[in-house]
Amino acid sequence: MTDWMRETADRYRRELLEDCVPFWERHCVDRECGGYFNFLARDGEVFDTEKFMWMQWRIVYMFATLYASPHRQDRWLELARHGYDFLTRHGKDDNGNYYFALNREGVPSVAAYSIYSDCFAAMGAAALYKAAGDPACRAEAESAMAHYLARMDSPKGRWDKSLPGKPRRRTLGHFMMLANLGCVLNDCLGTRQYEADIVRSARTVLDSFWCEERRVLFENINLDGTFDLDSCDGRHVNPGHGLEAMWFILQHAEQARDAATIEKACRVIRGLLEFGWDPEHGGMFYFRDALGWPHIELQADMKLWWVHNEALLATLFALRLSGDPFFLDWFRRLDDWTWSHFPDPRHGEWFAYLDRRGDPTHTLKGGKWKCFFHLPRCLLLGARQLEMLAEGG
Amino acid sequence: MTDWMRETADRYRRELLEDCVPFWERHCVDRECGGYFNFLARDGEVFDTEKFMWMQWRIVYMFATLYASPHRQDRWLELARHGYDFLTRHGKDDNGNYYFALNREGVPSVAAYSIYSDCFAAMGAAALYKAAGDPACRAEAESAMAHYLARMDSPKGRWDKSLPGKPRRRTLGHFMMLANLGCVLNDCLGTRQYEADIVRSARTVLDSFWCEERRVLFENINLDGTFDLDSCDGRHVNPGHGLEAMWFILQHAEQARDAATIEKACRVIRGLLEFGWDPEHGGMFYFRDALGWPHIELQADMKLWWVHNEALLATLFALRLSGDPFFLDWFRRLDDWTWSHFPDPRHGEWFAYLDRRGDPTHTLKGGKWKCFFHLPRCLLLGARQLEMLAEGG
Repeated sequence: MTDWMRETADRYRRELLEDCVPFWERHCVDRECGGYFNFLARDGEVFDTEKFMWMQWRIVYMFATLYASPHRQDRWLELARHGYDFLTRHGKDDNGNYYFALNREGVPSVAAYSIYSDCFAAMGAAALYKAAGDPACRAEAESAMAHYLARMDSPKGRWDKSLPGKPRRRTLGHFMMLANLGCVLNDCLGTRQYEADIVRSARTVLDSFWCEERRVLFENINLDGTFDLDSCDGRHVNPGHGLEAMWFILQHAEQARDAATIEKACRVIRGLLEFGWDPEHGGMFYFRDALGWPHIELQADMKLWWVHNEALLATLFALRLSGDPFFLDWFRRLDDWTWSHFPDPRHGEWFAYLDRRGDPTHTLKGGKWKCFFHLPRCLLLGARQLEMLAEGG
Repeated sequence: MTDWMRETADRYRRELLEDCVPFWERHCVDRECGGYFNFLARDGEVFDTEKFMWMQWRIVYMFATLYASPHRQDRWLELARHGYDFLTRHGKDDNGNYYFALNREGVPSVAAYSIYSDCFAAMGAAALYKAAGDPACRAEAESAMAHYLARMDSPKGRWDKSLPGKPRRRTLGHFMMLANLGCVLNDCLGTRQYEADIVRSARTVLDSFWCEERRVLFENINLDGTFDLDSCDGRHVNPGHGLEAMWFILQHAEQARDAATIEKACRVIRGLLEFGWDPEHGGMFYFRDALGWPHIELQADMKLWWVHNEALLATLFALRLSGDPFFLDWFRRLDDWTWSHFPDPRHGEWFAYLDRRGDPTHTLKGGKWKCFFHLPRCLLLGARQLEMLAEGG
């Protein structure tokens, strides 16, 4: 088993350093206008030049994080800085909110409606501070984080279309990202300032969004903490999202030596794996209805790369922290399905979208929602988890 | 051929009167709170009670239209009225804009952000006026139409997130719906008041959105009439949308005895059929990129019921008005694929969403975007076109 762990770690590391990173280094950098290209076709060719802030800041985060890793290459710091300079020059409105998108030259194209733009700006700037030590990056990270926290009570602000007939909800994403943001900022800025935010949000996710009776993690719950089983959005489950939240929580619980949280998060992971797995064709569903009603989103039964990246990381964290062979079985099953369906044998990197059977529906490598983020993060952290497992095994 | 036309007309009529209409009569009427249920599972069971205005008004339109058809049943007038009363009581804000959604009891749940809510309100109220002759319905239709026209210059109003870095566009949907709205209102209200709107919008669609060089109808064009081939939204093609626009235009061109428009619309239909058909698995794609780049929407390669309903109608109108056997071949091909994939053999009515291969991805009969509208309209008008073809043949 130890040998298998080591070989698997090598496979993840090689995929990261010999395939994924070179693909993005080669194709995503806009040397003419600054920032990065989001839209990359199968072979890396650019098929649109709009610059989406989630994606741009995530690429800053990823290059900075790689530079701060044991694999450090000097050019990664320059590539992170390249995006950061473009984004801090063009990316914010007068109130400090991050636009949703810019055009190629940096002129804002979509208004600052998404709280997650603030979120990824905070993560990107913090990772660059850790890599380069520039105090301006630290200030940028702290200001973006302050914006994120200030927006949590009304994340959509003036863009909120809901009226009194719509039940008000709490949304999993806002809490899970706060847990992750707090961890990234504490680590990168060398502080414990966000400890209370992390603990509070992890607790909310585990205590309020998890339904013990049905063994699912809901995406939307009522303000009073009850579940709404009568509506589509009340029953909406996004297993990849929940699994991502769980490894964020496990990562912090390990540092905090919080055994009860580790146990609970492992329990949630077990539930989501069993609920989200497609027994017929394999792979994890994108969306499911908790009671088995039809899901209203057209893409619900598709298989997405990031869902599988997050599921792999969640099972590895759970395996290492619990020692439960249940998670080894699941890691092997997920690893096998993921690696036999997502990597592109012809041009490298991974496909983003497969149909339920596992056939690619798209050939894009980068798009409005895929960039240099989930895959390299999974490969980097996955290799590290596997090495730790091999050493402990 | 005449016999085949007659048999096919019978098949469409039976599917309408013995399957589709009874399914919706049985399951969609909310006798307790008024209006209709949108969300119907495979067997008709309600799985959410939110009431989406596009869907609600479309159901009013459809029952009123059926009542005014040769198949008239008295109860259809009552069913149209049932929705109309609920919607006029609850469905508008103080400025006369139609909300996007209400909760079951009629409390507004989603703000009036969509110009198409006005559009379907105008169509529903006009059809009910034709059916029942109530002057209040006529006033409702005229006021909704006035709203639609007033919003056309800035359809998203305060909900528009685009900033100066986003190229401004004209959108096919706004013009094609104006052509349809004008025809419905002229017919139902017994007027020629909207003649200029119809002619102007049909001309815009055919002259500006059609690209002769690539033989596709674009969804979004630049304000100066040029095509933007460098961006995903500039290259976006929705073949079902274009085919729907074409039979709206043919319907009017026939009345106006406008041979040049008939010829041009038939040419567009030919282009869209060839561009939108899936040569590998059959059926019409939902979305395609005009230059063959990956489409950014996840559901792009799926097969949707309404796309096939509109394609069937477009080929029938084109066949009858042009006499070109090309459209007979295409009608038979589309009819065969559609009828062998969409109807639900167990519970009746049609599936909404299939994957690229033609397997259902969802079992819902009604949802956020499917209701009692495209299918019954296709069956009603399709049967009539087929009868006319049989008589002429």
